[in-house]
Amino acid sequence: MTTTLEAQTTPQIFELHTTGAWQGQFRTDVAVRGFGFTVAEPEVLGGDNSGPNPLEYVLGGFEGCIAVVVEVVTRERGITLNDLRLNISGSIDLRGFGGVPGVSPSFLTIDGAVHVFADIDEPTFRDLIDETERRCPLFNLFRDAGVTPDIRWSLNI
Amino acid sequence: MTTTLEAQTTPQIFELHTTGAWQGQFRTDVAVRGFGFTVAEPEVLGGDNSGPNPLEYVLGGFEGCIAVVVEVVTRERGITLNDLRLNISGSIDLRGFGGVPGVSPSFLTIDGAVHVFADIDEPTFRDLIDETERRCPLFNLFRDAGVTPDIRWSLNI
Repeated sequence: MTTTLEAQTTPQIFELHTTGAWQGQFRTDVAVRGFGFTVAEPEVLGGDNSGPNPLEYVLGGFEGCIAVVVEVVTRERGITLNDLRLNISGSIDLRGFGGVPGVSPSFLTIDGAVHVFADIDEPTFRDLIDETERRCPLFNLFRDAGVTPDIRWSLNI
Repeated sequence: MTTTLEAQTTPQIFELHTTGAWQGQFRTDVAVRGFGFTVAEPEVLGGDNSGPNPLEYVLGGFEGCIAVVVEVVTRERGITLNDLRLNISGSIDLRGFGGVPGVSPSFLTIDGAVHVFADIDEPTFRDLIDETERRCPLFNLFRDAGVTPDIRWSLNI
């Protein structure tokens, strides 16, 4: 990222475009740039289990999002990131999806653990956590929606 | 979905669990149930372009999410769904990701088109749209976050 004043005052818009083709039995094939992936539902939800479901892609994307920001911030700080492991879970109340009035179909909870491996002290680790949660697009999406992710961060364990 | 009174008053919690292993250069390999997918960044953002990026998975997941709800609602209404095509885009301001104070790193916009192909009249189509947007978990996530998706719905075109 450039840090000139001009860059800070001018929006730097980045656009993302996806295309989906429904395949029946709760399956959709998605195309994005040169890539493709299948969104489906497990058999317990009536699908053909041909891929992760929509919310699993969101949670996996969130893991990738956290990792990108951790890597960016450690680079900015001159920290060597030795390893990074993540476990992110979510829960919903299926009644909302089923149409029961007054029950939100969105995530009830998002939580998990992020394991950072780096030779840093505790204040530096605390700064890395704060900066990552401040700058991660998906962490902010969830927080803005009132479902702040409950992330347990660990250092070298 | 069952529609008994008991089912409507008792939460039906569904949990989702993902695991991510950072691979370096902004790439994370995600495991979920028996599946795996790679989250990466394009070269223009410093990555190795080995897969869609985090936000592209979210938008593709949103397409799958809309499709699942459309399929559920059409089944409930006894409507034959002949085809369903989706285009969903999003935008962010990279300054937020870069840490510029006061700039949100989350989605600025989410919009697109959903093309429904079914032999239904306009009021039935309007009901399908309303019910889908009311019950789709990710539509509600975005709306709760203040980024209500601007979806153009079309019928048989």
